[in-house]
Amino acid sequence: MTTVGKPTRRIEGVEKVTGTARYTEDLVLPGMLHARLLLSPHPHARIRRLSKDAALKVPGVVAVLTLSDLPLPPGASARRMLAGAEVRYTGEPVAAVLAESEAAATDGVEVLAISTEYELLPAVLTATEAMADEAPLVSPAAEDDAEAAGHGAATGGGSHEQKPSNVANRYHYHRGDVAQGFREADVVVERTYTTSRLHQAYLEPHATVAAVDPMTGGVTIHTATQGTFFVREATAKALGVSEQLIRVVPLTVGGGFGGKIVLTQPLTAALALAVKRPVRLVLSRRDDFLLSAPGPGSTIELRTGVKRDGTLVALHGRLIFDAGASSGAPAGIGGVLLGGYYRFPHLHIEALEVLTHKPPVGAYRAPGAPQATFAIESQMDEMAKELGLDPVEFRLRNAVDEGDPMPNGRPWARMGLRKVLETLRDHPSWRDRVSSEGIGYGVAVGGWPGGVESASACVRANLDGTFQVVMGAVDITGTATSMALIAAEVLGIPPDRIRVVTADTDQAPYAGMAAGSKTTYTVGLAVKGAAEDARRQVLAIAAKELEARQDDLEIEDATVRVRGTPQKALPLAVVAQKSMSFGAKYPPVFGTGSVPSPKASPGFAAHLVKVRVDPETGQARLQGHLVIQDVGFAINPAAVDGQMRGGAAQGIGWGLLESMVYDEAGTLLNGSFADYSIPRATDVPATETVIIEVPSESGPFGAKGVGEPPVIPGGAAVANAVAAATGVRITTLPMTPERVAAAIREHRRDSANPGN
Amino acid sequence: MTTVGKPTRRIEGVEKVTGTARYTEDLVLPGMLHARLLLSPHPHARIRRLSKDAALKVPGVVAVLTLSDLPLPPGASARRMLAGAEVRYTGEPVAAVLAESEAAATDGVEVLAISTEYELLPAVLTATEAMADEAPLVSPAAEDDAEAAGHGAATGGGSHEQKPSNVANRYHYHRGDVAQGFREADVVVERTYTTSRLHQAYLEPHATVAAVDPMTGGVTIHTATQGTFFVREATAKALGVSEQLIRVVPLTVGGGFGGKIVLTQPLTAALALAVKRPVRLVLSRRDDFLLSAPGPGSTIELRTGVKRDGTLVALHGRLIFDAGASSGAPAGIGGVLLGGYYRFPHLHIEALEVLTHKPPVGAYRAPGAPQATFAIESQMDEMAKELGLDPVEFRLRNAVDEGDPMPNGRPWARMGLRKVLETLRDHPSWRDRVSSEGIGYGVAVGGWPGGVESASACVRANLDGTFQVVMGAVDITGTATSMALIAAEVLGIPPDRIRVVTADTDQAPYAGMAAGSKTTYTVGLAVKGAAEDARRQVLAIAAKELEARQDDLEIEDATVRVRGTPQKALPLAVVAQKSMSFGAKYPPVFGTGSVPSPKASPGFAAHLVKVRVDPETGQARLQGHLVIQDVGFAINPAAVDGQMRGGAAQGIGWGLLESMVYDEAGTLLNGSFADYSIPRATDVPATETVIIEVPSESGPFGAKGVGEPPVIPGGAAVANAVAAATGVRITTLPMTPERVAAAIREHRRDSANPGN
Repeated sequence: MTTVGKPTRRIEGVEKVTGTARYTEDLVLPGMLHARLLLSPHPHARIRRLSKDAALKVPGVVAVLTLSDLPLPPGASARRMLAGAEVRYTGEPVAAVLAESEAAATDGVEVLAISTEYELLPAVLTATEAMADEAPLVSPAAEDDAEAAGHGAATGGGSHEQKPSNVANRYHYHRGDVAQGFREADVVVERTYTTSRLHQAYLEPHATVAAVDPMTGGVTIHTATQGTFFVREATAKALGVSEQLIRVVPLTVGGGFGGKIVLTQPLTAALALAVKRPVRLVLSRRDDFLLSAPGPGSTIELRTGVKRDGTLVALHGRLIFDAGASSGAPAGIGGVLLGGYYRFPHLHIEALEVLTHKPPVGAYRAPGAPQATFAIESQMDEMAKELGLDPVEFRLRNAVDEGDPMPNGRPWARMGLRKVLETLRDHPSWRDRVSSEGIGYGVAVGGWPGGVESASACVRANLDGTFQVVMGAVDITGTATSMALIAAEVLGIPPDRIRVVTADTDQAPYAGMAAGSKTTYTVGLAVKGAAEDARRQVLAIAAKELEARQDDLEIEDATVRVRGTPQKALPLAVVAQKSMSFGAKYPPVFGTGSVPSPKASPGFAAHLVKVRVDPETGQARLQGHLVIQDVGFAINPAAVDGQMRGGAAQGIGWGLLESMVYDEAGTLLNGSFADYSIPRATDVPATETVIIEVPSESGPFGAKGVGEPPVIPGGAAVANAVAAATGVRITTLPMTPERVAAAIREHRRDSANPGN
Repeated sequence: MTTVGKPTRRIEGVEKVTGTARYTEDLVLPGMLHARLLLSPHPHARIRRLSKDAALKVPGVVAVLTLSDLPLPPGASARRMLAGAEVRYTGEPVAAVLAESEAAATDGVEVLAISTEYELLPAVLTATEAMADEAPLVSPAAEDDAEAAGHGAATGGGSHEQKPSNVANRYHYHRGDVAQGFREADVVVERTYTTSRLHQAYLEPHATVAAVDPMTGGVTIHTATQGTFFVREATAKALGVSEQLIRVVPLTVGGGFGGKIVLTQPLTAALALAVKRPVRLVLSRRDDFLLSAPGPGSTIELRTGVKRDGTLVALHGRLIFDAGASSGAPAGIGGVLLGGYYRFPHLHIEALEVLTHKPPVGAYRAPGAPQATFAIESQMDEMAKELGLDPVEFRLRNAVDEGDPMPNGRPWARMGLRKVLETLRDHPSWRDRVSSEGIGYGVAVGGWPGGVESASACVRANLDGTFQVVMGAVDITGTATSMALIAAEVLGIPPDRIRVVTADTDQAPYAGMAAGSKTTYTVGLAVKGAAEDARRQVLAIAAKELEARQDDLEIEDATVRVRGTPQKALPLAVVAQKSMSFGAKYPPVFGTGSVPSPKASPGFAAHLVKVRVDPETGQARLQGHLVIQDVGFAINPAAVDGQMRGGAAQGIGWGLLESMVYDEAGTLLNGSFADYSIPRATDVPATETVIIEVPSESGPFGAKGVGEPPVIPGGAAVANAVAAATGVRITTLPMTPERVAAAIREHRRDSANPGN
């Protein structure tokens, strides 16, 4: 292979780093109005009065719209629109103010806020409160969210129930006889782990410009989304119209991480339909923090049993994900992963998704996985410590492999978990580590079952002999560059002769959302198929024109040549012209590829972190980070390396920094980047990446999904390192200095007074 | 067949007639500048001085650009840019003024005109002058124009020479021994026919908005064109860049008739690149008349010989097309048609394309055909009259049929010429005609060899069970509606569940320009293939899901059913969802069709017109019009009927009204719709259409190209009717009242003085 496998600069990289890339925010349509939203200041309340008059008098304000002003037919889903009679979380959009400028719209919202009165209703702000017997119901009829399904891995299986309570979804996974398992155990560890609600912390807030098409009465939606077809479907359903009337034009996504699937697009479309003018809704940073869909916080009760020789025997787990005011938290995936990495002959896992009066959660890179992994990988370290075993060897002894069942009973496919652990075991950073006072090393592994979806793509010749990949997948991680490499490899031309176009939903072949580590894995297969199709067509034409056998042809220097007879040659431009011109003898060179969901290829990563903890302040700082990941085959090693480093950094956020903090009234206290801590350059240590390639049976050139795995074990590895550095097991993320210092103090107190 | 063949309202019709359709002129991009062009006031001159200073002082003017200011690399074609050192026709763009408003740009041009000085050079304004020995050369190196080729029919063959003179192209067609042929003739008729330069008279002037893409440095061109890929190719060549950097977005075409292929797009793109702001160039009506590409005027010397029994024996013809300042006149097609309708055992045709100092011509519906048909069909009538034969029977006796050679030696394919003539012969309007004083009936036939081009198209399922046709062909005549019918017929669903998208050049499957009667004929085949592909995919999925044999399935009411077991059914929406969703077992339903150029299917039309001529004023008025056309199969009979009526009306323009008139300085005298006469409602009589269906071997459902044939015989039929009404043969079109009155006067003088 001459093209794939070589580190390649991202096509869109220069524009992004030089600031010339255009985002939705930069789009100006003639006659466009600016929208700002009035957000609920209460977690649960009845809207007693909303008077538009004063807001409408603000200069520049054109319209003030509430739910009843939106052109929604009966039966249309009100999801992601405006609140009706009641608000169900602080930050829920209550009304939209449309104005000739953003400033006027902002003024209008401020005036409108004064003219709006609420009657407070009892709210439940934590899963514990929500699960109490007398708790008020957050949602009379829980509505399921396909977003997590589209993002998530193919888990399924297990049993799953749903009933009218704040427990929106409840999953059970069983294997063997758990009670018997624990009877066989020599050591039992039982802990409760807690993780925080995390924001995806993308740089670009949610942004949409919607315009009514005067030709069709439909709406064209320009937006930063990870999934154009998903936005189309959700908007068509929300508006109660045919999908044909909705056109979604993808614009550059300024960071997504699962948080840019669908949010304000249906509302913006409804606003444009209501006023018959283009409407631009770009959230302020504060509004984005308040109403976007972060990753859920979790509480995980975990009990595991192990024999003295290090053989795991039983697991009992209960995961509770706080979904906010609508269902959509990935409790099922969390349950599968909690018991999925290791061979537990006996297990019982219950995974609950609980509604609260907080903003609905959504997908965050590897939904559900960092939470579950934090729990099981902390537990694995504790068991190893209790047994006096090397934590890597202990994991290797119990790690699942191809054919082993997941908690849902489905077998794991070919996977690299063992290879990743062996690489970690033999790596000098682990093998030669030297512990010292206040320094700890922590390891953890984590994996993603692999996202799967059907996809189509086209590879088309241009008249000058260049080629165009046309696909429906949005590029959020450099996947367009990988598609160019795939097509170039197949066609035998340099990648700069390939242009990759993400087409809009009117024109694109189908692709699922760019999420769940599945773009290169699934759409890449379609692109490969399309390029192979195009290549066959090129060679068929050249064979006829050169009077040669197709098998004797090769493509070199943008020219088809007869092997061994280099003077018999036909430039690709000539092939293209002979297939696309007046009187052309041949059909246009137009390759297509369509693939069903491939078999899932699990992707695993291991992290080793070195942490120094100041025992007085509780400040933990990373001194080194090693990421080992099985990617099947690295189509663009530079992009893979970037994913691994980015995932490692986000893992530090999970471990030490990030948390959306709500007060007792359900108000977010840190809704800005001044208050919400994400890892800065100074928080990220020197990071080493090691790419492992256990080829996938299905992915293009053996590639697997790369995006989710590297974030998954981060929090757990940091926690294990902090435990090693301090001797204190902390079970709550993030491990802020206050939390660490308090834990150390408590531990010292306990050690000083062992009798207590 | 349940869908194709039924008269169907045009999808885009309502928007067009209610004025809600948006045109390029309506497009406003942020920061957009308005361009106006300084046009040469002289047919041939050296630009002695051009001072920008005064124009730049006009308020609102931002830039004044000449050729040297455009970012054109060495070697880029300067065609369709700005004049260099010399101007070669009155109306040639010399400079562009860019301003914040169109009014400011117009003012700037007026000021610039005063500041520009020319040195007049000798000009040739007619083909006769241009062919004189000492004539100045219009073009040092004649450049060929692919436009006519793309529009034109598959003629080819014959011999073709090119040499440095004002004769840009010279074609010869030979058969038999012409001298011997004329020796066998009992009657020889010799005439010289002249036709005028005609404007396509579309309602919307040429309009383009070009914007530089900051991501790629390329240009996005929003434009009203009949051929997006052709514009892309021409612009890439003109700018010397890769086609990948040019994106052409098709907007509604407000009339084309061959005149909207490529004109100002490369220049507008160059202007946008020069100033790095979006540039809008919408021609004023006057500028459009001055610099757009009309149909060429012609002079045709024709000599034919026939035996007393009505058997044609010889033809000698010489066609001269006045191409204006660049080559591109369809002389070759004219030559092939001049000798192509009838069996001449001996023929010699010479067809010349001559350059003059007039604006370059382009394609006008059926390029070259009305001119040649006027000559041969006038001649046929005269011969019939000399022989005392019925003109329809005389044509029938000599008409070519499948397998007969064209003048270029290629055989005619299956064709309906005879069927059309027989239908005319038996039609009551002809059979039962009653002549009277001042009333004449005229007939003529004409045909088009059939445009051919390769094409691709996609038919894609949407998640709600609707389907989308994605193609690259622009709809100028209702072809999108025909595509919906084709796809609906194949899929077995109502046409309103099909949406047809003309994609831009970044995203579209290839299609040639919408010209030459080839969109439905060629792209329709690709759409049919794509729909069949999509249907197969739908049935394959349903067969598996319903556990049935594919052959037992049918599609009815948007549902796949097992024949005879109606309860075994799967809605199309479910099929779509099973093929396009997370974990989908099946590939997305994404049908594609790619076809090479089909064999050409000639299309013939016959016209019968009834004319009343006022012998004093020379005013000829139509009293009835019958159009009989073989269309192979009428996919949308309403659209076919519309094409026939439109062609008939344009034929009246050819016959009686239309002519671009130039003065001795090469200045167009009638560059407005106040001065340039096109048929008005009062000029068009009651028109009857008769659709004949001699199925094409290749076209979709047997369809043939429909657009060109109905305009072709119009002028000739009117001329024959005027001759019948007055007894005077007029050989110059249009037959204006002055011309007719003069001819009648001269004829009376000659009759009164037979000795002269």
